[in-house]
Amino acid sequence: MVTSYTETCETPGITAAGADPDFLKFTPPADAEFLHYGFCKSIDVIPMTPDGKPTPALLTRAALESADIPHVVINAGSKIAPKLPYIETGLVPGKNIALEPGLEESAVHQAIDYGEKIGKMLARSTDCLIIGESIPGGTTTALAVLNSLGFRFNVSSSMPNNPKNLKDEIVAKARKRLELPDSKDLHKILANVGDPMIPFVFGMLSSASDSTKVILAGGTQMSAVLAVGMHLGYNMYNTSLATTSYIIDDKSCSLLGNVRSVSDSSILSINPKLEDSKFSGLRAYSEGFVKEGVGAGGSMIASMLKTGIDSQKLLELIDKEYERVSSSK
Amino acid sequence: MVTSYTETCETPGITAAGADPDFLKFTPPADAEFLHYGFCKSIDVIPMTPDGKPTPALLTRAALESADIPHVVINAGSKIAPKLPYIETGLVPGKNIALEPGLEESAVHQAIDYGEKIGKMLARSTDCLIIGESIPGGTTTALAVLNSLGFRFNVSSSMPNNPKNLKDEIVAKARKRLELPDSKDLHKILANVGDPMIPFVFGMLSSASDSTKVILAGGTQMSAVLAVGMHLGYNMYNTSLATTSYIIDDKSCSLLGNVRSVSDSSILSINPKLEDSKFSGLRAYSEGFVKEGVGAGGSMIASMLKTGIDSQKLLELIDKEYERVSSSK
Repeated sequence: MVTSYTETCETPGITAAGADPDFLKFTPPADAEFLHYGFCKSIDVIPMTPDGKPTPALLTRAALESADIPHVVINAGSKIAPKLPYIETGLVPGKNIALEPGLEESAVHQAIDYGEKIGKMLARSTDCLIIGESIPGGTTTALAVLNSLGFRFNVSSSMPNNPKNLKDEIVAKARKRLELPDSKDLHKILANVGDPMIPFVFGMLSSASDSTKVILAGGTQMSAVLAVGMHLGYNMYNTSLATTSYIIDDKSCSLLGNVRSVSDSSILSINPKLEDSKFSGLRAYSEGFVKEGVGAGGSMIASMLKTGIDSQKLLELIDKEYERVSSSK
Repeated sequence: MVTSYTETCETPGITAAGADPDFLKFTPPADAEFLHYGFCKSIDVIPMTPDGKPTPALLTRAALESADIPHVVINAGSKIAPKLPYIETGLVPGKNIALEPGLEESAVHQAIDYGEKIGKMLARSTDCLIIGESIPGGTTTALAVLNSLGFRFNVSSSMPNNPKNLKDEIVAKARKRLELPDSKDLHKILANVGDPMIPFVFGMLSSASDSTKVILAGGTQMSAVLAVGMHLGYNMYNTSLATTSYIIDDKSCSLLGNVRSVSDSSILSINPKLEDSKFSGLRAYSEGFVKEGVGAGGSMIASMLKTGIDSQKLLELIDKEYERVSSSK
């Protein structure tokens, strides 16, 4: 689970991950802590909207626990370090791409290099490496990277009314910096309009897919990683993208077609049937809120593949986890 | 490779790791960086005395490279984080045990717990986990822990004139805090007179030895880890202690007997024949300087076991590494 940050998320209205900019930067470490402990240390509550829509880390945790799948947290540019043992990369948080380049170009190279090293190490420990992320505002930087690489994607959102115009505005501002003649180089694109997560996770994918199966657990952001991979290379036959049906069925984007245009890797989707949950906060996922994140889709698929449980049983575990969290508040 | 720190090292005359207290805190990250890159980033030079005695990390690096053995750096309480991808534990540096408890008691529990988690993860990736350390002043805290647990050990030193009296004075001051009636508990001992490395590496040993072979690469400090293990348990049949003959042959301590009294684990020793080196800085090891550290002994043994090279060939590689480092200054 990769925690990261782009100041792009501080644009009002861009993300559901946290309404208050001061709070936003705590989302990645809080997600990591929740995954690890079942509660958070950097903040007093678990990341949840005031009306009870929880972080997707809740689905991820229920899924990983159900199948006894170990996890490791990697900090690749989060503003706040998680309070648990984790892998630190020393990468700095991304800047707001509407205002300035997201990263130094040297940081792009460093992120890929560090990702390769860590991916190689983790690949040794498993026959299937699942990579998830927590980076507020990350779909906007992903959109900017995809568009700059020539793909006219629409991207998904953590909110039912996808703030497309706002995202497009930010992307247009960021891409202005790419109008210079020598700015079409991939690393320049990633530096100008990207975030630290994309090159870092690409680095992980690149080395890990050499020697083991890799599941990129996510939607839009992971498709940006695959788009980078189309240029820089990886083993696509060892790679899958896995996400929730809420992303695949999102009519405001077209993830399936988008991924197809950047990769021949397989695509896995799970419908966790959250509309049948006992809790309105979870049912909201099926109504277009949150949808995915923290590797939730990939983790649920991995749990079902490893243990053979069905989505009915998995939903029971997710409901139980929600109940535990709500009653411990 | 575990980096850590105890302010005990700031006592003048206690360690060869760095003469200047301001410089001492850079030794662990510099050792880690040298291992990783072949040069340092936190300081301009590699850790070496003015007259050319290099850090044992030079031996470790030559050995690991010769056998293509991967490594990972774990920060367990170093004052300065290394500039490379590493595992962060969030543990705080140890205090000077002559003046105050080395750690909070809660930090001892946390160090063991984090060590167990990381040990379990790393054990999955290898059939033999070699654990080395870099903690200036660490033999003094190790001595204090061993004495407090009832072992009248003498300990080794990075200097030919082992400053035994100075160490004994510090240990006596630290042990004064253990005279209270309820202070004989192991965790209290580790908190009062120890450093973050000892409980952390014990945690790693404890979980990793459950599922894979473990080599504790070091002398005195690793014997303190084994002494903790005698109380808290680990799989000693999966465990070895490995070090250089400079430690085993050190007449100022008696490591062999000491380890025998705390563990039935096997003991491995290597004579790297540095007296035959082309460089006086390396020959100094055979004259009682430095002797061991950063897992040098265990790494050289692992290299020979994995590749079948003899100590003659290994010395050539070590000399070559010294030459490279000296000429790039």
